[in-house]
Amino acid sequence: MDKIKAGVLGATGAVGQRFVQLLADHPYFEITVLAASDRSAGKTYREAANWILPQPMPAQVMEMEVQPISTHLDCAVVFSALPTAQAREWEAQFAAAGYAVFSNAGAHRMDEDVPLLIPEVNPDHLNLLPTQQANRGWDKGFIVTNPNCTSMPMTMALAPLHARFGVEAVIATSMQALSGAGYPGVPSLDAIDNILPFVAESEEVKMNIEPNKMLGTSTAAGVTPAGIRISAHCNRVPVSDGHLVTVSVKFRQKPSLEDILAAWREWHPLPQQLNLPTAPQPALVVREEQNRPQPRLDRDAGGGMATSIGRLRPCEVLDVRFVCLAHNTIRGAAGGSVLNAELMMAQGMLEQFK
Amino acid sequence: MDKIKAGVLGATGAVGQRFVQLLADHPYFEITVLAASDRSAGKTYREAANWILPQPMPAQVMEMEVQPISTHLDCAVVFSALPTAQAREWEAQFAAAGYAVFSNAGAHRMDEDVPLLIPEVNPDHLNLLPTQQANRGWDKGFIVTNPNCTSMPMTMALAPLHARFGVEAVIATSMQALSGAGYPGVPSLDAIDNILPFVAESEEVKMNIEPNKMLGTSTAAGVTPAGIRISAHCNRVPVSDGHLVTVSVKFRQKPSLEDILAAWREWHPLPQQLNLPTAPQPALVVREEQNRPQPRLDRDAGGGMATSIGRLRPCEVLDVRFVCLAHNTIRGAAGGSVLNAELMMAQGMLEQFK
Amino acid sequence: MDKIKAGVLGATGAVGQRFVQLLADHPYFEITVLAASDRSAGKTYREAANWILPQPMPAQVMEMEVQPISTHLDCAVVFSALPTAQAREWEAQFAAAGYAVFSNAGAHRMDEDVPLLIPEVNPDHLNLLPTQQANRGWDKGFIVTNPNCTSMPMTMALAPLHARFGVEAVIATSMQALSGAGYPGVPSLDAIDNILPFVAESEEVKMNIEPNKMLGTSTAAGVTPAGIRISAHCNRVPVSDGHLVTVSVKFRQKPSLEDILAAWREWHPLPQQLNLPTAPQPALVVREEQNRPQPRLDRDAGGGMATSIGRLRPCEVLDVRFVCLAHNTIRGAAGGSVLNAELMMAQGMLEQFK
Amino acid sequence: MDKIKAGVLGATGAVGQRFVQLLADHPYFEITVLAASDRSAGKTYREAANWILPQPMPAQVMEMEVQPISTHLDCAVVFSALPTAQAREWEAQFAAAGYAVFSNAGAHRMDEDVPLLIPEVNPDHLNLLPTQQANRGWDKGFIVTNPNCTSMPMTMALAPLHARFGVEAVIATSMQALSGAGYPGVPSLDAIDNILPFVAESEEVKMNIEPNKMLGTSTAAGVTPAGIRISAHCNRVPVSDGHLVTVSVKFRQKPSLEDILAAWREWHPLPQQLNLPTAPQPALVVREEQNRPQPRLDRDAGGGMATSIGRLRPCEVLDVRFVCLAHNTIRGAAGGSVLNAELMMAQGMLEQFK
Repeated sequence: MDKIKAGVLGATGAVGQRFVQLLADHPYFEITVLAASDRSAGKTYREAANWILPQPMPAQVMEMEVQPISTHLDCAVVFSALPTAQAREWEAQFAAAGYAVFSNAGAHRMDEDVPLLIPEVNPDHLNLLPTQQANRGWDKGFIVTNPNCTSMPMTMALAPLHARFGVEAVIATSMQALSGAGYPGVPSLDAIDNILPFVAESEEVKMNIEPNKMLGTSTAAGVTPAGIRISAHCNRVPVSDGHLVTVSVKFRQKPSLEDILAAWREWHPLPQQLNLPTAPQPALVVREEQNRPQPRLDRDAGGGMATSIGRLRPCEVLDVRFVCLAHNTIRGAAGGSVLNAELMMAQGMLEQFK
Repeated sequence: MDKIKAGVLGATGAVGQRFVQLLADHPYFEITVLAASDRSAGKTYREAANWILPQPMPAQVMEMEVQPISTHLDCAVVFSALPTAQAREWEAQFAAAGYAVFSNAGAHRMDEDVPLLIPEVNPDHLNLLPTQQANRGWDKGFIVTNPNCTSMPMTMALAPLHARFGVEAVIATSMQALSGAGYPGVPSLDAIDNILPFVAESEEVKMNIEPNKMLGTSTAAGVTPAGIRISAHCNRVPVSDGHLVTVSVKFRQKPSLEDILAAWREWHPLPQQLNLPTAPQPALVVREEQNRPQPRLDRDAGGGMATSIGRLRPCEVLDVRFVCLAHNTIRGAAGGSVLNAELMMAQGMLEQFK
Repeated sequence: MDKIKAGVLGATGAVGQRFVQLLADHPYFEITVLAASDRSAGKTYREAANWILPQPMPAQVMEMEVQPISTHLDCAVVFSALPTAQAREWEAQFAAAGYAVFSNAGAHRMDEDVPLLIPEVNPDHLNLLPTQQANRGWDKGFIVTNPNCTSMPMTMALAPLHARFGVEAVIATSMQALSGAGYPGVPSLDAIDNILPFVAESEEVKMNIEPNKMLGTSTAAGVTPAGIRISAHCNRVPVSDGHLVTVSVKFRQKPSLEDILAAWREWHPLPQQLNLPTAPQPALVVREEQNRPQPRLDRDAGGGMATSIGRLRPCEVLDVRFVCLAHNTIRGAAGGSVLNAELMMAQGMLEQFK
Repeated sequence: MDKIKAGVLGATGAVGQRFVQLLADHPYFEITVLAASDRSAGKTYREAANWILPQPMPAQVMEMEVQPISTHLDCAVVFSALPTAQAREWEAQFAAAGYAVFSNAGAHRMDEDVPLLIPEVNPDHLNLLPTQQANRGWDKGFIVTNPNCTSMPMTMALAPLHARFGVEAVIATSMQALSGAGYPGVPSLDAIDNILPFVAESEEVKMNIEPNKMLGTSTAAGVTPAGIRISAHCNRVPVSDGHLVTVSVKFRQKPSLEDILAAWREWHPLPQQLNLPTAPQPALVVREEQNRPQPRLDRDAGGGMATSIGRLRPCEVLDVRFVCLAHNTIRGAAGGSVLNAELMMAQGMLEQFK
């Protein structure tokens, strides 16, 4: 199969590095462009990127020259790891110029005509794209986004439950890894022997609105949110990778614990059916040990693409409670966008980008 | 003032060391006995205790000989840092033998006739003691307990709110420090770069029943629990000291955020009125910064005896949510029992132990 | 190729788990036996092992029944992760019973007739085996050991230098990872926000005698130690995996820094020539960045089997100084023994165990 | 006693905060000025300083207005926590304007006519001040500096040994705390589960030249360095406070281990004789446990002003080796300068600043 030429925007940062790693030997895509801020442009990637991943930098990108961000890049698809402000400036320009844009940025996630996509959860939301193109006068390009790294595991865990039992309300507390703040990110004196009970102004808002969009109903006209009341307490913890979330849930219909376990275990969503290259098998790993999932032991499940769940038990206030976990810079960021692109590829929606 | 002779049971362990530190220069009590398991008995305290506190071992206890646990100790009051099983075996024997027993152990906390006491919260529960002595045939001795280290900060934060507005339901997630598991406690490979989403079988149960007892109504006949539905998710985090708890609350009457802040700030409970030696002034430290309280910066507030609260804001599911924190081995353990003893002393209830 | 049947002794512990992981899909060996203490025997491996590795337990061992340690196991080769005392009791029995014993234990490392082997460093020391068998009356079985996890990276870094320039003296300071102490190992309260300036009575001794044996000259009669004066300061640091060692070296002949870099870069020892399955290519990774190697970024180089070196510069007291690093539970433990076995296999020395 | 008016330069940073804390209730000095960069000037200290110390901000400074740095401050003495570049720009101006300058910055430490002072080690180096004033045309003002936070504990440990036995050579490896890099300082992703084998270009140089100046002989004409060859490996470790250093030493005369212990224990230098307010008693804490000193347990010895030493034993290459530790932001920074000022005060050298 001919691979599609892909560029990474914001390639030198923490999420950009994950894109590079995940796309380095990808069966569908080939990295032809690494683009970053002017400060990095002109250097080799090896010089420009302060590589912070435990796995070594892929050999094929080491000597590639980092390019300035522009809409004249030699690629058809771009994966965006741009900071929000830059994403707001650039992503629509790329789409207008005919690129397929898969973005991890928050800039367009809540735009009415932009899919906020988890392929396992709401693949049908891609039906927003014709409207998006019509609204904005784009004939080929488009923007597809993936959710915030903390919304992501919780939405995965809720999706099969919402489909069967109707989720009415959720109270969640996140324990978010340091890599979620990028690099240099959190100062070490704030992280050592400490917890920060605050992540960012918008973090708890995202935990409320993003799951409601993803679990909502999409028509060409837009998405009707799911109407779930969600309250989140977001915390930063001294963990390198892996966001852990405690969740209490109230349902419209009252399932037993067995019903819930069955809903999780029987879930075999589209990416797993299509056997997409980075789709984890299974999508949800339900742990039976009473002290799992743990970030250090479970974040790499399914190559960092699976969501791990454990400790299902009754909740004295709502109906049930449990814990879920996903790798925040793989599944919760770069890997999420890569899977979005794989889904469109497998459905024949990227043919004109070949 | 003549000091009362005090013994520490389980003196060599983590909580025992805190008792020793807090009682070393105490105006009411004088350490005359350090008692521990047979393995330690006969050694000097310096030899027997693997001292793990950052503050140095008090000079006056270094050369004291550790004694085996027996009811023939040269003291009138004992502070118990015994493990649950040993506490169950020994504490009632000490009370029967005429000792005043202030216990940090879980063994008798939920006994109907034993006060589970936070002096700021339920000082009137000491009215159980005559019943306790009558029930058990003790003429002088008694048992008073302090709550679990995680129940403690949440109960402190809820007490003035419950009094004014009536608490109906609570969903809480704890992030508990390593010292809560004692020494050697949590293996470092479980703690580094990790979170354990589980503390102990009974931890989440304690978070439910202990606050209900403390916030309940006590008569000579026993305590009527407060009837609050409480759901807790307990987690172990890589922090040395200081338990942080996120809390969502539903009230019977609906206070505004200002009402709640006023309730916290105007609270001036009995230990603070009596100016007890280790009572923090104020009892509650309400932080205004959006990223506080933090374990490293706030656990030592009020000498480790204050409870810090922050991030009060509306809850989309219940009514309001906030974060609270206390030092788990000071206020949440040894310091809690010391304050219990101070309260009784200041109220003239320990005269016969002088 | 027919695989050789292999057993893991001490299979449930930290090093045992690494053996299981490394042997799970090995081209030469097939795990047929998992043996451990009586407490674990009879359970499935999944039940018996508290799996602490970030990579999931290999599927093929999950349901294997753990066997008690005995010399009647259904395998020809055993990999020993036994504690020293048990290793002293059992390993010679296994060798006497005809098993090939590859041991990570310290019990027999310094025995005159037992090879202490790093395949890159002293593959010729296998010439001790006939003497070992003759001395002990073993006709088929034997014991081959790998060095202590801290001796290992330093000896790898010194080997090509000693061959060219003659090492006379070494002063080293180790910063050793927590996993080196096994599980539960170091209490978390000793590890958080802390350094322990002490590892074990014998650790600094091993750092002196083991490199001298490995860098010494072996004849059938025994090994003549290299005669290098080595002084080591061993410390435990809050790192999960990866031992870092700072090294100052004095040479008999005085090489330039370029000479040293050349010696490291040109080194292409036997396991790399033979392309053994777990031999890293290259054996030594020489980093040019001034802040490398780092445990988190470099421990997994070469699949955890490479030794990383950096910061070569003059020493104001001896001749030069540098920093080296290796993964202590892979290359410094289980992986070392696996590579020893691969070396013997590739040299036809395990034919009679097929 | 009338207190001397004191200003803190760079008051909002990590070291500036320590100055504020140590001077808040000082018997000799009264904080009248908090000066910092233009960005902070005009705000209250409470607003301007992101307070990162576990102890609360002293009440008396909370509402003080932070002033811009100028030589028209209302104080007689300044304590400088300025970054090197700013210190180079400002400190001489302050001295020229008649202020007594006690600086923690590296800018003037190695100037020939500037004392690099540890009051226990080289109080006589204050004899450089008349030359300094003559050289520079200052009639009242002067600059006195304290050493780098890593040089400090090693120099303290060596001082009494050098006086008795003559130190010839030293090889040291530091494990330096995160607070040594200030705030935000080290990114948490570099600190978690990791060691950085590099601190700063100049760090290892300072470890060589500073002890030689302090242990050298001072006359009015300047300091003759001690001529000790010193080789240092500097590392950053995941510890909040407390620099640990492993040290191997070669002596001119060969003392026994007992001789060395005696030299440490019998040392009763000038600040301790004068009983200066922040002088620790004793200056050196010699630990006998085999696993001490440790940062978490020993950094606060003597209120953070003592140097702890342990693990004295023979060195196979040089003569002896040991481990030493001091609190890097107290004794190794702000506290060092405060003690310098106390020494001059007690010797009547600050009379004209009253």
